[in-house]
Amino acid sequence: MQDFSFYNPTRIEFGAGKIASLDQLVPASAHVLVLYGGESARRTGTLDEVTAALGQRKVQLFGGIEPNPSFETLMEAVDLVRRNNIDFLLAVGGGSVIDGTKFVAAAALFEGDPWEILLSMGQNIEKALSFGTVLTLPATGSEMNQGSVITRKLLQAKLPFKSERVYPRFSVLDPVKTYTLPARQVANGVVDAFVHVMEQYLTYPAQAPVQDRFAEGLLQTLIEIGPKALAEPQDYQTRASLMWTATLALNGLIGAGVPQDWATHMLGHELTALHHLDHAQTLAVVLPEMLRQRKASKLGKLVQYAERVWNIHQGSDDHKAEAAIECTRDFFESVGVKTRLGDYGLGTEHIDGIIASLEKHGMVALGEHDDVTPALCRRVLLASL
Amino acid sequence: MQDFSFYNPTRIEFGAGKIASLDQLVPASAHVLVLYGGESARRTGTLDEVTAALGQRKVQLFGGIEPNPSFETLMEAVDLVRRNNIDFLLAVGGGSVIDGTKFVAAAALFEGDPWEILLSMGQNIEKALSFGTVLTLPATGSEMNQGSVITRKLLQAKLPFKSERVYPRFSVLDPVKTYTLPARQVANGVVDAFVHVMEQYLTYPAQAPVQDRFAEGLLQTLIEIGPKALAEPQDYQTRASLMWTATLALNGLIGAGVPQDWATHMLGHELTALHHLDHAQTLAVVLPEMLRQRKASKLGKLVQYAERVWNIHQGSDDHKAEAAIECTRDFFESVGVKTRLGDYGLGTEHIDGIIASLEKHGMVALGEHDDVTPALCRRVLLASL
Repeated sequence: MQDFSFYNPTRIEFGAGKIASLDQLVPASAHVLVLYGGESARRTGTLDEVTAALGQRKVQLFGGIEPNPSFETLMEAVDLVRRNNIDFLLAVGGGSVIDGTKFVAAAALFEGDPWEILLSMGQNIEKALSFGTVLTLPATGSEMNQGSVITRKLLQAKLPFKSERVYPRFSVLDPVKTYTLPARQVANGVVDAFVHVMEQYLTYPAQAPVQDRFAEGLLQTLIEIGPKALAEPQDYQTRASLMWTATLALNGLIGAGVPQDWATHMLGHELTALHHLDHAQTLAVVLPEMLRQRKASKLGKLVQYAERVWNIHQGSDDHKAEAAIECTRDFFESVGVKTRLGDYGLGTEHIDGIIASLEKHGMVALGEHDDVTPALCRRVLLASL
Repeated sequence: MQDFSFYNPTRIEFGAGKIASLDQLVPASAHVLVLYGGESARRTGTLDEVTAALGQRKVQLFGGIEPNPSFETLMEAVDLVRRNNIDFLLAVGGGSVIDGTKFVAAAALFEGDPWEILLSMGQNIEKALSFGTVLTLPATGSEMNQGSVITRKLLQAKLPFKSERVYPRFSVLDPVKTYTLPARQVANGVVDAFVHVMEQYLTYPAQAPVQDRFAEGLLQTLIEIGPKALAEPQDYQTRASLMWTATLALNGLIGAGVPQDWATHMLGHELTALHHLDHAQTLAVVLPEMLRQRKASKLGKLVQYAERVWNIHQGSDDHKAEAAIECTRDFFESVGVKTRLGDYGLGTEHIDGIIASLEKHGMVALGEHDDVTPALCRRVLLASL
């Protein structure tokens, strides 16, 4: 096990009807800005439920935060916060709304150009507004972590930042709120959570048996419940397990004390920034070949993954690794997320641009060994056509 | 999965040499009381390391907190805190010192008789002094939870309390600090952590697959590393895994959203209060027969435990359950913790007194179904002779 620091002060309120607890969770004197995405939050009644729970508090709304939340849109919210002396934010939505709210929380109190928050990856955040979240889409784990990814459309850049100052003060997780999600978003959530675990698990053996067992437990659970979450949208228990699994997949716990990869995410971000694939779609495309192209350095963990997660015990280590990679691809396909660039209309001709963008963003030595070069990423993309 | 609230703001600093980080963790202006147990903290140099890390801060010491920390001793510390306007506590030790420090933190600011904290099980705690911990003994999880158990010698009572106000602000976990522990304490820690997991896991199937996987992962890890932690006291990685496993066994995570038992602990507390067995010894005695006497209501989970943790796949459900219970007993014995009342000099003649004490403390409807009566506890003790 490596040395680590772990800190996660987000309070979780989990269960059907827990939105009512906002009345206890949000300070009584708060002037609240509720941030949300598309009109589904209004159509499904969630926004009404939230504002009802906030009672007599002064509440304003800010809608229209898009998937891959943009700097451009979020700066409008920052302006609103500053003009109206808003002192508490409440994100209602999925990872994009929550990531965006984290940015607004930090940017509203930032002195200087808030884009610098991204350029410093959050290290220059000294304070942020308090905020909570009402999660409606299990996927990113943003509801219980200190990370955020923001896109600047003008620059075709999608960049991460993190800071302890942007942990949500609380997150309300009501599985019922996921019943009305489109299947595509649920499937994306399953893939996103799965790959979050893989980025923290599928590296090299690091004498961290508990972290391994926890990661394997999350993967096994996603494999068990993913298809059922799609087939039976109103099965409370399945949706509850999916929601809690996705949160635990990226709340810092399974990554504490172990090496981490994240090359699949960084390459995937370029696919989204340039070609607008859903985040999870990029992960489903990149991960299988990212594992295969790095099979030699990842073999120990690939074999463990094959045996413990996929119950593959026959054949050589290489055979087990290959079989596990194919099981991974098949799993993504089984929940309806395509795993080839061609499935999204991308071909050989797009690869130069993707690699150039990766280099422009300084992503030239990725992965747990800093050995994932643009050249290797090119091989990954070519194998993923 | 049941509804739940989860909140755990304790910061963990994990690794060799992390005591040096106290300089960042403790407020610079703090007037600190360092609380510890026996003289081993001084003899091993840990106390010197701690006071050196605290630098120029005003520091006082309070030693002599005993295993099963007593109200009587702790009230001396409360008096010291009040007389000297101490504003930060630092526990250096294992679960007893940390539990005791939690009580001191709450009692020092309590208006009225601090014993009332125990009588209300912590519900009347409105504020507490800030405190951190330096853990030297992996076992109880107290370093990252809101619980504490205090003994009042005069009343032969050992009672628990909990409050969000007594989460440690931080805990320093340095596995090297465990190298010098007596084997008995290490073995007790393994058993304690194991039974903590069992109390939150071995109830009935509750459609909480992630919590189950996490619990099973902790149990599997303890089974793997427990004997090695005893055989190779200076194996850093083994001691690191034991330390982190014991913390995760009782930091609230695996118990969130699932039914919990705790009957073994409650009966065990009486054995300690009356007959001075080590806490873990009481658990090792009680748990196997507690499971057997309740086999019918626990059968679903016993079979899952047998299959997933002990790899028992042959025979009837009853056979699997019995085999798993015997594996549990054998595991405790294998790390040197005896599992029969007779091993500790107790016989039939002591049972009436234990049951009377249980009744006196109101422990008459224990367990996940509130069906563990004093009569059932009597059968457990008789079967554990």
